[in-house]
Amino acid sequence: MSKWIWYPGDFELYHDQKVHMRRKEKGVFWPCEWDLYSCSFAVTFRKEADLASDEKIRTAATAPGRVVVVDGSGRHWLKIGEEYKVPAGHVLVEATLNKQGGLCAFYLQSAKLGTDEGWQVRPNSGKFVGAASNGMYEKIEDDPEVFKFSYKLLKPAEVKEDKTGVLYDFGRETFAKLIFSKAPRAGARFNYGESLEEAKDTENCPLFETAEKNSEFPAQAFRYLFFPGLKSTDVIFEAYYEYLPHKRLGSFKSSDRLLNKIWETSAYTLELNSREFYLDGLKRDRWVWSGDAYQSCLVDRYLYFDKDIARRTMTALRGRDPVKQFMNTIVDYSMYWILMVYDHYMMTGDAEWLKSVWQSAKTEVDFIKTRKNGEGFIEGIPGDWTFIDWSDMDKTGAVCAEQILFWRVLDRMDFMAKVCGDKGVSYANEASQLASKIRKYYWRSDYCAFIDSYASGKNHITRHANIFALLFGFANKNERRCIIDHVITNSAVTPITTPYFKFFELEAMAQIGDLKYVMDNIRSYWGGMLAEGATSIWEEYKPGVPAAEQLAMYGRSYDKSLCHAWGASPVYLLGKYVLGVRPTSPGYGTFEVEPRLEGFKELNGTVPIQGGIVTIRYGCGYLSVETDRDGGVLKINGKSVMLRKNQPTEMPL
Amino acid sequence: MSKWIWYPGDFELYHDQKVHMRRKEKGVFWPCEWDLYSCSFAVTFRKEADLASDEKIRTAATAPGRVVVVDGSGRHWLKIGEEYKVPAGHVLVEATLNKQGGLCAFYLQSAKLGTDEGWQVRPNSGKFVGAASNGMYEKIEDDPEVFKFSYKLLKPAEVKEDKTGVLYDFGRETFAKLIFSKAPRAGARFNYGESLEEAKDTENCPLFETAEKNSEFPAQAFRYLFFPGLKSTDVIFEAYYEYLPHKRLGSFKSSDRLLNKIWETSAYTLELNSREFYLDGLKRDRWVWSGDAYQSCLVDRYLYFDKDIARRTMTALRGRDPVKQFMNTIVDYSMYWILMVYDHYMMTGDAEWLKSVWQSAKTEVDFIKTRKNGEGFIEGIPGDWTFIDWSDMDKTGAVCAEQILFWRVLDRMDFMAKVCGDKGVSYANEASQLASKIRKYYWRSDYCAFIDSYASGKNHITRHANIFALLFGFANKNERRCIIDHVITNSAVTPITTPYFKFFELEAMAQIGDLKYVMDNIRSYWGGMLAEGATSIWEEYKPGVPAAEQLAMYGRSYDKSLCHAWGASPVYLLGKYVLGVRPTSPGYGTFEVEPRLEGFKELNGTVPIQGGIVTIRYGCGYLSVETDRDGGVLKINGKSVMLRKNQPTEMPL
Repeated sequence: MSKWIWYPGDFELYHDQKVHMRRKEKGVFWPCEWDLYSCSFAVTFRKEADLASDEKIRTAATAPGRVVVVDGSGRHWLKIGEEYKVPAGHVLVEATLNKQGGLCAFYLQSAKLGTDEGWQVRPNSGKFVGAASNGMYEKIEDDPEVFKFSYKLLKPAEVKEDKTGVLYDFGRETFAKLIFSKAPRAGARFNYGESLEEAKDTENCPLFETAEKNSEFPAQAFRYLFFPGLKSTDVIFEAYYEYLPHKRLGSFKSSDRLLNKIWETSAYTLELNSREFYLDGLKRDRWVWSGDAYQSCLVDRYLYFDKDIARRTMTALRGRDPVKQFMNTIVDYSMYWILMVYDHYMMTGDAEWLKSVWQSAKTEVDFIKTRKNGEGFIEGIPGDWTFIDWSDMDKTGAVCAEQILFWRVLDRMDFMAKVCGDKGVSYANEASQLASKIRKYYWRSDYCAFIDSYASGKNHITRHANIFALLFGFANKNERRCIIDHVITNSAVTPITTPYFKFFELEAMAQIGDLKYVMDNIRSYWGGMLAEGATSIWEEYKPGVPAAEQLAMYGRSYDKSLCHAWGASPVYLLGKYVLGVRPTSPGYGTFEVEPRLEGFKELNGTVPIQGGIVTIRYGCGYLSVETDRDGGVLKINGKSVMLRKNQPTEMPL
Repeated sequence: MSKWIWYPGDFELYHDQKVHMRRKEKGVFWPCEWDLYSCSFAVTFRKEADLASDEKIRTAATAPGRVVVVDGSGRHWLKIGEEYKVPAGHVLVEATLNKQGGLCAFYLQSAKLGTDEGWQVRPNSGKFVGAASNGMYEKIEDDPEVFKFSYKLLKPAEVKEDKTGVLYDFGRETFAKLIFSKAPRAGARFNYGESLEEAKDTENCPLFETAEKNSEFPAQAFRYLFFPGLKSTDVIFEAYYEYLPHKRLGSFKSSDRLLNKIWETSAYTLELNSREFYLDGLKRDRWVWSGDAYQSCLVDRYLYFDKDIARRTMTALRGRDPVKQFMNTIVDYSMYWILMVYDHYMMTGDAEWLKSVWQSAKTEVDFIKTRKNGEGFIEGIPGDWTFIDWSDMDKTGAVCAEQILFWRVLDRMDFMAKVCGDKGVSYANEASQLASKIRKYYWRSDYCAFIDSYASGKNHITRHANIFALLFGFANKNERRCIIDHVITNSAVTPITTPYFKFFELEAMAQIGDLKYVMDNIRSYWGGMLAEGATSIWEEYKPGVPAAEQLAMYGRSYDKSLCHAWGASPVYLLGKYVLGVRPTSPGYGTFEVEPRLEGFKELNGTVPIQGGIVTIRYGCGYLSVETDRDGGVLKINGKSVMLRKNQPTEMPL
């Protein structure tokens, strides 16, 4: 079977460019704020083989090019698309493509010579390596320059008409393209709204279209569509949900209906944002942000275990050497990329993939180190963005949270160097020196906390660095106790306002074993959004403030994303710490299942794992755990029970 | 006045991509054999100013983007193309453009804020630098993505019709687009021919078109057009010469009509190949080859002194860091680029420009050094091409000609480092160490010559390394005498068969003062081509072989280029050594004029110099030399006479 092939990374970089060049707000194109990487302009594909019999070939390409066939009958130049019969015997096929800014992808249809990973490919300045492909593009008619989404017809839940216009309510957040069979009159505009407020506020609505000659409009995020000044009879259209057809493997169904709804809404939020890559949010920029993607990868493995989107996202984010800036310009975001790579290896056990990205992990870390300040801490220079979170924080000079994150990076790099058999580098010393320095400069035993910054002298404390110290195993036993008592459970320390950092906080507490804190927070924080009518999880949420007053962000009336991937963490937290499924060695070679049943009458769920699935059923005082992989251990009531492949372990509780 | 602006280099790299992605041969796309550099995908332009009064602005761009104006009235987002009135006071204008593979060029029309080199620009991962522009693109209607050629209607010299078809002979080599008012019937094909033979050989003709719906065909090289099977009444078309309208400043008119014709044909050959960049030849690939361009730059300064095309060519060839391969994959071609930079500085005295490319000269040399072998000589690895010339040469291991060329590179780098005030590097030691090694490994005093290669043990001698030893001042007095007697004037050593290396040979002999050898060769070699009917200079010429038998090259019947820029050297040689005009310090700060009148009854000519021109008139025993620049010295009959600006120096001879 033949597949479309390309130079590794080109497909991802091509679509990454596209994704970052389509934002519009209030009718104005909104350019990407960072630089984008080029895919290869001049690419050569090659294959040598010995044919037992004559073989018909036919080619296709996304770029102008030429195919050279050298066989027993001589040297032949073929146009792309030309058919040819290769005589039996030895044959060399070489195809060179050129495209200005496009994707150079090649297809050769043939039973014995067909393009696949067995072909070699190189940019004209590089070495031949194995070609890359993607299961989405296996037919000659496929076009790898067009991302292959699926479509499903949506029906509005309600259509309301009044003197101001006609409003379509689709019942929940969605992402759909519109095809008009009766278009609004030319020049008429219509508004997209995640909220009713923005759909109806023609002056300030960030997303709108103006009807012109075209009758089809590309997919956008919305729940509401409003046609100001029109009646329902003025327009006839169909909305098609645009999505990636990956299969949901994780599930969560318990006697706690609120938790079920939180899980479902979180899962739907991730679904909507899982597209070419993990996007940050559905409405506003739909760009690929590394910190956001880091969390999406974690959540995904408790929902789809879709390794392909994770690899696509990491490839797109990383670009190619030389590294010229931090990912998304954010210092911390380059660091998360390293942790994303580490997590991917831990969850999948794919050492071959890890080795394939190892060199670029090292050069990314080398780039981060170019920002060492006089004390040896990572400190951004003008043009770099120290993000951490949308929270008031003392960001003077080198920030503590960045240092603990970087300590974790060095620590995990050391681990990965060993997996990759790279004896030429060591990160362990560097990590331990950094650890001592962090304690010296940032730990204040009088405050029982890590301070944000030493440079300002303000000794300001936020949760962030302290959460990282817990989460990444940086804090020692004493520091841990201090942080929990004096920071995390201290309501005087400003609470986290984004689901993004809630994720980190709750995972830290779950690791410590304080599941009550986690569950209380999920119920109140995520539950709070649902109570305000959320149909997908928001970018930011301030409990107590009514929904309609929460729509503004970044100084603009409706810029807050109401469907933000970083809100999907309950899927991860409930799967990992309530259903309790997690690997104890890379790729789920061994794993534990530690269901936490307290408070549940019933708890049913599935968690995908590398190469298999774990199913947990609890109800009527009876627990059943089943898995189709070896290596699992059930931990329950202080006991450990070996799980057997395909044999349910059942017990009364 | 406003101009189109872009990030420095983007314009050149964009057009370089285009130039290398349009070759076709026998109807099949012929992809470029090396890699191409990307221009910037995400670019931000900015300008800050204080306005005394309100100012209307209007923008244009070659890419999607957004303009942000921050003025006294607030922050405004403008669409590209939108008009706006900036109120008096302080204003910041920022425009960000995104384009996949295209050129991000920006234009802001305004008297006080207009885009020009005073604007700043950066790729989103880079630092702000001064914007680049080009005098060709100063109107808002201009499109910097379309190279601005001029067009002139051509009339065929002759139309011949017989039973095989109809033939249009344009009298000489040209480059023209065809516009049909009556197109040949769909599917009919027509052949382009530099020679009559290829135009009429439908089976083997490399360049042809097949008439389809379009009635316009892009410019191609030809002298003949042949429509097989058609009559002259079957087609009506016009041919438009496509050219760069730069002004010829050099001239040569003497009592020797053959020399005049050689000069004229050489000048026309360069004219045809001076386009977006200096191309190698007009028919076959029309790519930018560094060795070829090196010579074109030298010739150009005796014809147009067009600094812009020289800079465009050098920028396109050099691409951007990191260097991934030799220019055109050829080891020697990266080296010529350094010499091209040096020559450009010497002829123009433009130290600011030199400083702007100095960093990339250093990284290019660093790349060359990655190919040092065990003995410290530069030796290509698989994938690198050691070209030197189309000549039988012993290319085993490290080749002598490459080493002498690299010695010259190091020597000139040392000179340029001083001009650039770069005290951090020194190339002098390296150059002298290399010189000793070259003598040790390659000089054979028993043969009185440098051998091609030491690795093979064959002691094979060609002219090439020996010519370089003379030309670049590498050979000492003794070696020089040896080489002249035992190599250059030794007919047993295979003669040079390309005008390319003839250039080097003749310049070496001219420098030594053997002008007779130079003139004899120009008359016989170039004169030989003219005698065979050449209307432009060929890529290769074997004296004595009839023209019709000289058309094949590269194993294909008509692949020899009959209009090859590297054949234009007589313009240079006659200007520099017969009219005798050459700088003696950078940028013609001082210069000499040393006319060599022997054999001429009359000799009239002009030579452009930096900031001026030199005019020489000789006839009736009277010499007149005139120049509009200070610093010139006339050297005649062993005497030196100071030339005065705008005051002809005249004397009987």
